[in-house]
Amino acid sequence: MKTMARFTVFVVVGVLLAGAAYAQFAKSEDAIQYRQSVMILIGQHFKRMGAVVQGKTDYDQKIFGANAEVVKTLATLPWDAALEPGTDKGDTTMSSAVFSKKDDFMKTAQTFEAATAKLAEASQAGGLDAVKGPFNDVAQSCKACHTTFRK
Amino acid sequence: MKTMARFTVFVVVGVLLAGAAYAQFAKSEDAIQYRQSVMILIGQHFKRMGAVVQGKTDYDQKIFGANAEVVKTLATLPWDAALEPGTDKGDTTMSSAVFSKKDDFMKTAQTFEAATAKLAEASQAGGLDAVKGPFNDVAQSCKACHTTFRK
Repeated sequence: MKTMARFTVFVVVGVLLAGAAYAQFAKSEDAIQYRQSVMILIGQHFKRMGAVVQGKTDYDQKIFGANAEVVKTLATLPWDAALEPGTDKGDTTMSSAVFSKKDDFMKTAQTFEAATAKLAEASQAGGLDAVKGPFNDVAQSCKACHTTFRK
Repeated sequence: MKTMARFTVFVVVGVLLAGAAYAQFAKSEDAIQYRQSVMILIGQHFKRMGAVVQGKTDYDQKIFGANAEVVKTLATLPWDAALEPGTDKGDTTMSSAVFSKKDDFMKTAQTFEAATAKLAEASQAGGLDAVKGPFNDVAQSCKACHTTFRK
């Protein structure tokens, strides 16, 4: 019973925090534009790392690591904007499944975040071979989210 | 003479590095879209801090600090995209002064970067009073660059 009460407090606080986050966008278009901007930047920096992993560009630990750090930071940003009510309408490719399967959405988002953090960590430590697996995990987590939550 | 030779090497290497950076964008539109995305995100996170500095939102060191860190990271990103040749044309508000006054542009860019780093540092250390000055310096450095380098 005590556990249940604690869980309820946790959920209520979580929802209130999420509510505060929504309010950061003056209008729906701002939230859509914000998360699209994040995705454009993630796409560019991920592509740069992809060229290295595919052998099209030489591996430079400093440059690869900088790209991985940028993606790690960006990966934390778009979720509040995605959860902004009504933003599955308009100039967006976001599916309404974000709202109907919110828990699943947040799980895939967290998997993606965690994968980008691991890639950044791997790029600090090792050479090209050390980053290939973590890079592939990030790619898989991109795909997993896009398959279900993009129109 | 030796100093001059060193300087020449420095400049040549610098230009080569800048050349490598340009090549990261497949086409002009990508560079324009990239830097616009950076500016949209900087604008959002800067506005959130602005609401706090103006007393419209309560100061929460953790949230303010997170916004300052995001802006610090983003502030390092748009310059290569700005220097992409020909990207003062098309769907952009970037002035051709970026190319005709490239040294001045990079100086204002560096001033902005440094100001965002100082704001992030201040937000780690102190309360609302500690961040007001550094926040204002960032605002001034935004304005200084936009005045000259935006159409």
